[in-house]
Amino acid sequence: MSRMIILTEADLRRVVTLDADAVACVEDAFRALATKAVAMPPILRLDIPEHRGEVDVKTAYVPGLDGFAIKISPGFFGNPDIGLPSTNGMMVLLSAKTGLVQALLLDNGYLTDVRTAAAGAVAAKYLSRQDSSVAAIFGAGMQARLQLQALMLVRPIREARIWARDAEKAQKVAADLTRTLGISVAAMADPQMAVAGADVIVTTTPSETPILKAEWLELGQHLTAMGSDAEHKNEIEPAAIVGAGLYVADSLGQTRRLGELHHAIEAGLVARDAAFAELGRIAAGLEQGRSDASQITIADLTGTGIQDTAIATLAFSRATSAGAGTPFES
Amino acid sequence: MSRMIILTEADLRRVVTLDADAVACVEDAFRALATKAVAMPPILRLDIPEHRGEVDVKTAYVPGLDGFAIKISPGFFGNPDIGLPSTNGMMVLLSAKTGLVQALLLDNGYLTDVRTAAAGAVAAKYLSRQDSSVAAIFGAGMQARLQLQALMLVRPIREARIWARDAEKAQKVAADLTRTLGISVAAMADPQMAVAGADVIVTTTPSETPILKAEWLELGQHLTAMGSDAEHKNEIEPAAIVGAGLYVADSLGQTRRLGELHHAIEAGLVARDAAFAELGRIAAGLEQGRSDASQITIADLTGTGIQDTAIATLAFSRATSAGAGTPFES
Repeated sequence: MSRMIILTEADLRRVVTLDADAVACVEDAFRALATKAVAMPPILRLDIPEHRGEVDVKTAYVPGLDGFAIKISPGFFGNPDIGLPSTNGMMVLLSAKTGLVQALLLDNGYLTDVRTAAAGAVAAKYLSRQDSSVAAIFGAGMQARLQLQALMLVRPIREARIWARDAEKAQKVAADLTRTLGISVAAMADPQMAVAGADVIVTTTPSETPILKAEWLELGQHLTAMGSDAEHKNEIEPAAIVGAGLYVADSLGQTRRLGELHHAIEAGLVARDAAFAELGRIAAGLEQGRSDASQITIADLTGTGIQDTAIATLAFSRATSAGAGTPFES
Repeated sequence: MSRMIILTEADLRRVVTLDADAVACVEDAFRALATKAVAMPPILRLDIPEHRGEVDVKTAYVPGLDGFAIKISPGFFGNPDIGLPSTNGMMVLLSAKTGLVQALLLDNGYLTDVRTAAAGAVAAKYLSRQDSSVAAIFGAGMQARLQLQALMLVRPIREARIWARDAEKAQKVAADLTRTLGISVAAMADPQMAVAGADVIVTTTPSETPILKAEWLELGQHLTAMGSDAEHKNEIEPAAIVGAGLYVADSLGQTRRLGELHHAIEAGLVARDAAFAELGRIAAGLEQGRSDASQITIADLTGTGIQDTAIATLAFSRATSAGAGTPFES
């Protein structure tokens, strides 16, 4: 018999929110990736093309932490047609000492949403100009909303633009965010106009062809591309990576295979083994982030198992303190 | 909100046992692997050497099945020192159409035990002589017990020998099995003596150096090696694979990396891309199994995600019919 705690999405929403603590938790995780003997195996990926489905399984072990998470993250892109969200999933937290299941985090993807947005904040903290006040967000899904909210935790954002293929959805997101975030958020019909004059740009789409051209980028801008987590996804024109003053990966091992970097390599613009900075090494002070106010910086985020272990550990610790969740024996 | 069924180990033990149905279910899975467009990605593996721990995550999608399992399978080999089993784990059954979690199978490794033993029965069914009556089992753990029980489902076993490094454990297993299986089971002090005259031999240990020498094998014997599921594990002297009349993998992609075949390749005895039969192709009639009574046959079983999807599907279907389990919403 082993005893575990089951945490529902409602339990988890009560104990973890997208706030400074969540950003600090994910920042610490990136720093650990650069400074500790973290074990983070390649992502397990299963494709079910006949149902437009894919599942990623991610994990990472951080020496010193009591537990590690295994995250099951399905994306089924026909789900909205039948009234279901396209992404959902759950995490399992296991003891690093015994392998026993400590907790089932039935978050329906909520913790992934939080840790993904928090990584955007960490990227902006080290790579965007400190005085960044204008944000441009590409996309109109959950991450479009959360990435803007995350930016506001680390930079004095006072104005935002939303561009999405579906102009109606962009309008809706802009209206919602104006109300909930208390800043001016406008939907833009022209993606180039959204980029012009922005300080920070975040792309959050599952696009398979570039939606942002290299020539649109201006001196001093920071761009976080967080939509691509698979070989076929591509948001940024590959030339942008070559043109940037600083390109930063969440995990070079992953961005070479799954990120925007992958497409620059495939296009022959970047050598397969070319060295680039990683976000964790910058957060740990081992490499330099933005060097000056005119540099163009790009963060390529594919999502790492260590973020899952970090947010699951935070959620479990808070739930335990709060006495949240349902004990279950099996 | 999504709704799932939670099945405990007790629930699962009530609906699934190691019997002819379980063997047929796993046999069907192997056949599907050979005949359908099964998606079975490489195993995700995380090592935690400071706690003598490892975790495998396996999955497979079989076209036509409503669901697919993702299995989390930890092995922490210091656990017995603190009174815990070394292996445990759970499975998650997801809908193949929506990716939503259908069931949590909190089996503590029970279903893995059953599907692993069932694969041994499938191997013996196609590779051992039909009149096989003497079995030799190497090891004294759970699989030593279950593999013998599984053999008895497909062959007229009337006598068995147990050899294990720990002679006391071998004695205990032999006494237990004599009582529960109703056949004569004797512990042997000498592994070569255990092999001599046996019809079927099954090795079930986590050994990292060969415990069975090639020269011990006799004409007409069948050997199933099911202990190795990782690069560093090795039960059989590599020369045995070259000397056998027929070598069969559960999955060639896996045995080349993780099985006994891997060590024969490393030793330079077998070419890295040498072609061999797979158990599913034999079960499907696409390749020949044992050709005559004097052939020496070897099955190399590393454990495949399709076995997990198959046994989880069987368990879920039976549990649903029986109204077993606890509904849970999140």
